[in-house]
Amino acid sequence: MPDDAQVTRRPGGRTAHTRERVLSAVAAILTEEGFDAVSVDAVAARSRVHRTTVYRRWRDPGGLLADALDAAREQAWEPPDTGSLRGDLTAVNAQVIEALTGRPPVTTALIAASFRSPAAAHALRAFWEDRYARAAVVVTRAIARGDAAPDADPRAVLVAATAPLFHELALMRAPAAPGLAERYAALAAAAALGG
Amino acid sequence: MPDDAQVTRRPGGRTAHTRERVLSAVAAILTEEGFDAVSVDAVAARSRVHRTTVYRRWRDPGGLLADALDAAREQAWEPPDTGSLRGDLTAVNAQVIEALTGRPPVTTALIAASFRSPAAAHALRAFWEDRYARAAVVVTRAIARGDAAPDADPRAVLVAATAPLFHELALMRAPAAPGLAERYAALAAAAALGG
Repeated sequence: MPDDAQVTRRPGGRTAHTRERVLSAVAAILTEEGFDAVSVDAVAARSRVHRTTVYRRWRDPGGLLADALDAAREQAWEPPDTGSLRGDLTAVNAQVIEALTGRPPVTTALIAASFRSPAAAHALRAFWEDRYARAAVVVTRAIARGDAAPDADPRAVLVAATAPLFHELALMRAPAAPGLAERYAALAAAAALGG
Repeated sequence: MPDDAQVTRRPGGRTAHTRERVLSAVAAILTEEGFDAVSVDAVAARSRVHRTTVYRRWRDPGGLLADALDAAREQAWEPPDTGSLRGDLTAVNAQVIEALTGRPPVTTALIAASFRSPAAAHALRAFWEDRYARAAVVVTRAIARGDAAPDADPRAVLVAATAPLFHELALMRAPAAPGLAERYAALAAAAALGG
């Protein structure tokens, strides 16, 4: 193996490095210029990855956005463990608010893109389902503690806590009011006790 | 006044009739072809209203979409009165599901358009806030009956009931599962008792 290949070797290898460069170009173009600007050519130019490589591996804007979401899904994530259902849901909600109000606004841009690209919509759904599945332990722990009814449905409780944030911040474009994370976490926790 | 003006007179007058024609053209183009196809020229052609009139009154695609939402907001609407909070919220949720899954998919198309047009986003928010304000009586009636805690926040309870439907159907593009309206209505009603 020639010396220069040694020098450029990274954890995950060249391919992982190329993917990182391409996906950070996707995020930058999406948040700065919007979905219409995400093209194979623009991503190739910004990432300095050859356009043939980008085209062969990602094909089109939908493929690029879907892979950005898949990469987010592959990242390690565990739900918080605060000792109470209300506390755990508040902490999860705080993360959702951070994602929806953070700069650059990657999450909101991906939601917007999901209305333009079926591939992005599919990947966004897979991302959220994965997070709900990983967070289910928050509710099963609460059931074990007697902090939720035995027949509480983990996914429904998590959706009840988080969906109002997507509704307020992404669909209604309201500013994040103080106490927003806690308000809907408290309602969902009360609902979970009701079964 | 000449006779032919008498013949074409309608409740609300010529202007109201022009608006109806323009807005039904907007809805048809939006649901059949999407936001990119909604232009002053396309709407003028489809509605057979002169393009100068469309341009003068609605200006651009954002203005056309915003007025379509304003027209929906102006329509009479009262929340259901079933005798219980859970019943009322289930009935409201059934209406939301119908709006989100109906054909043609006007509501979903308007949500998608709100990510492209600030005017449409603003009008969509006004539409929803108006509906939440009108539906608040569902929760205040429940408080009077002892069906909800005295300090239950009407808007938060309504958002808790309805937001999961927007999340599941509009953002996650899940099919409407049987019992969906009831599931999140029951959770929100249980939460309202918790205060």
